[in-house]
Amino acid sequence: MDFNKITEGILARFKAIVGESAVVTAKEEVSNYSHDETEDLIYYPEVVVKPQTVEHISALLKICNDALIPVTVRGAGTGLAGGALPVKGGLLISMERFNKIIDIDEQNLQATVEPGVITEVFINAVAEKGLLYPVDPASKGSCFIGGNVANCSGGPRVVKYGTIREYVLNLEAVLPNGDVIWTGANTLKYASGYNLTQLMIGSEGTLGVVTKIVTKLIPRPTQDVLMLASFPTNEDACAAVSAIFRAGVIPSALEFMERRGMEWVIEHDGIAFDLKDGIGAFLLIEVDGTNQDVIFDDCEVINGVLEAHNCADVLFADSAAQKEELWRIRRTMAVSVKSNSVYKEEDTVVPRAALPQLIKGIKQIGAKYGFESVCYGHAGDGNLHVNIVKAGMSDEDWNNKLKDGITEIFKLTVSLGGTLSGEHGIGLVQKDYMPLKYNDTHFLIWKGIKQVFDPNGILNPGKIF
Amino acid sequence: MDFNKITEGILARFKAIVGESAVVTAKEEVSNYSHDETEDLIYYPEVVVKPQTVEHISALLKICNDALIPVTVRGAGTGLAGGALPVKGGLLISMERFNKIIDIDEQNLQATVEPGVITEVFINAVAEKGLLYPVDPASKGSCFIGGNVANCSGGPRVVKYGTIREYVLNLEAVLPNGDVIWTGANTLKYASGYNLTQLMIGSEGTLGVVTKIVTKLIPRPTQDVLMLASFPTNEDACAAVSAIFRAGVIPSALEFMERRGMEWVIEHDGIAFDLKDGIGAFLLIEVDGTNQDVIFDDCEVINGVLEAHNCADVLFADSAAQKEELWRIRRTMAVSVKSNSVYKEEDTVVPRAALPQLIKGIKQIGAKYGFESVCYGHAGDGNLHVNIVKAGMSDEDWNNKLKDGITEIFKLTVSLGGTLSGEHGIGLVQKDYMPLKYNDTHFLIWKGIKQVFDPNGILNPGKIF
Repeated sequence: MDFNKITEGILARFKAIVGESAVVTAKEEVSNYSHDETEDLIYYPEVVVKPQTVEHISALLKICNDALIPVTVRGAGTGLAGGALPVKGGLLISMERFNKIIDIDEQNLQATVEPGVITEVFINAVAEKGLLYPVDPASKGSCFIGGNVANCSGGPRVVKYGTIREYVLNLEAVLPNGDVIWTGANTLKYASGYNLTQLMIGSEGTLGVVTKIVTKLIPRPTQDVLMLASFPTNEDACAAVSAIFRAGVIPSALEFMERRGMEWVIEHDGIAFDLKDGIGAFLLIEVDGTNQDVIFDDCEVINGVLEAHNCADVLFADSAAQKEELWRIRRTMAVSVKSNSVYKEEDTVVPRAALPQLIKGIKQIGAKYGFESVCYGHAGDGNLHVNIVKAGMSDEDWNNKLKDGITEIFKLTVSLGGTLSGEHGIGLVQKDYMPLKYNDTHFLIWKGIKQVFDPNGILNPGKIF
Repeated sequence: MDFNKITEGILARFKAIVGESAVVTAKEEVSNYSHDETEDLIYYPEVVVKPQTVEHISALLKICNDALIPVTVRGAGTGLAGGALPVKGGLLISMERFNKIIDIDEQNLQATVEPGVITEVFINAVAEKGLLYPVDPASKGSCFIGGNVANCSGGPRVVKYGTIREYVLNLEAVLPNGDVIWTGANTLKYASGYNLTQLMIGSEGTLGVVTKIVTKLIPRPTQDVLMLASFPTNEDACAAVSAIFRAGVIPSALEFMERRGMEWVIEHDGIAFDLKDGIGAFLLIEVDGTNQDVIFDDCEVINGVLEAHNCADVLFADSAAQKEELWRIRRTMAVSVKSNSVYKEEDTVVPRAALPQLIKGIKQIGAKYGFESVCYGHAGDGNLHVNIVKAGMSDEDWNNKLKDGITEIFKLTVSLGGTLSGEHGIGLVQKDYMPLKYNDTHFLIWKGIKQVFDPNGILNPGKIF
């Protein structure tokens, strides 16, 4: 696809639509939109606009569609696969002004929000009404709910409460030709034609621009227990994961963290934690509910499983402050790794009983190719984030040989029944690995679907495939 | 699309693929495949085949795709929207020999099944291992799990445990050109390109033929309480529904039944039940879990809500036999209605707090057009099955005027934020009403997607749109 540049005339039309102050061309400000949280990648858009209404988006897309100008839609820029990077230049639409919680419907336990609402702001707003929206990525304090929809984002609580697919009921979306649709209905069940809501979720801004999101909410659990279990080895910790579910308990979070990650959090995030010798890995386990006895019963079952898997020690958080501190360790791990070294993050996901094989294999591949990795993630979902750190690797190896190592990691993931990404998306940096899992037929279908929504290919070009 | 007839030569090729005994052309036997549970509709296929392997299906589809022969795939024929009716003749593929539970993976809490497995057989097989597969349509004793996937079927327990979309992880499917794909991965989370698994779910056999299904399983609740609450009016019962969730309880089933339905069950199904005067409607409410105290606490909360909504009486099932009897009432209601009169069934779904308005409106529309309706369904999901019975209506009115009445019901449904079907699908009999909810853009996208998968339009033609 040959795209065109944004001319002065088109720029004037953008300004007429959204107002002069909502169009950014000054390089210093544009540079804020040239990167997300993916490695150290930088791509400049030609122009950034900050629309505020669905009519703005519709008018902007119509112009770009007619003029063949690439359009990249950006949420908070917390993505880890480069999905929001404007790799073909063109127009970047920032959704930052779509920041209203339009309605929290306590009668139906549903909410309607704009995509630029920060996920944690939304979680807190519904919590105030005794309700739970359980999709809480580690970046919840800064990421936008629209980005979560685009990437099919997860988070710790998905393991008990279901993925974002179970919570997003309906979407208002603008197609590249400017048409506005509601993808489905505000209903808990839907069997009325191909489900476009589900198709939009995880489509990474390549099919349309989401402008409103209707979510399901559920009653909020009132109590929880949080424990941190220590294990001598990664494999011990990983093997305990599937055993907990087999024992009949579904925790509200079941997170894995490697020792190295913990060390870096202690070093970089100033968190006080007594890291004992001989400990190789941790599971952070939360059990929630409305009844203390049931939670304690579940914890007892979990404890039995942990003991049977060489668990060295279990720390029960005994205050809200300690719970917050333990969660902070987990949530800041990505940032600590990043501040410590150049890194690449892979988002492997496998059936959960395959986790011990996965982590063992990752370390073997690392040894073979000479890279260090720090692994952590939503082990209850079989979802392991593999942070490959440059550390002592030569630039030459980092830029060339590493790709073969990542290829081996994904081959292993696929051989275990898994796939390339569980919740980060494919975006820019994972797309080259997609043929490891998917065949030509798959690509033909995906490209066909893209063609149906976006015949000129203007929306987030260069992503996924 | 101009389709071709099945020639003697093509018939011989079918026989060469699946074996002579698996090809049916004798009218008496073919007639078994000429109807499903939709009204009294009958459409004959030219030929029925009963393949047993994915290679059979691939070879059959390749022939039909090249020769432009329409193909309708049939599960157990329990559909209520005519989705399995071969309206264009051609080949009917019966999935009855795809009846193996391939694997119940107790390590990963996953199972792999063929689509011709009866849903209840699967539910029981995993229950024996202490596991739950919670998607249980009323027809679970006869319907196939493949049909459930095709129609995005629900059932009572979806209200607590999530829809079939949350349980189907991966599908093996054959495309019209004979290509075989796995749509996703055997993982609990998935952010690796457009989600073809989700797109196949609810596509009613129009995009591909599902040949294997990988499902998620969860630990099985060990205890439950079942209660039947009686109300003076439909509106009272319906108003209590959303109030239960607002009170913080998620029941494992919350079913609505109108008095008229109960009368017909008593009359036709030989169930003994003391139907008191002044009772207009019922809620069948199940609460399950692993701890009796919690269940009783939840029941107390529910009881408080029921009292506040004019509930006349609550019957607690005091034995497994009584539970089964109450569930039998709910499950046989459709059959009882059907055996009593010619009828049409609409599968409305709305946000649950809109149920009182929906049922009131349905009765008003019935009065206006002179039809009687019997309503029941999964009220906890806002999903109301509206059975319109012919009773005293003239043939003239039934065949002509009724359509306007149904149109009004769907207009009301849509105005309340709902859609045409929550779990039955659109199939043949609802497709004319689709423009009441969906605009031209929607249809263009749907048809475009169909074209990507099935450029010759051979798969289940004449359905959905």
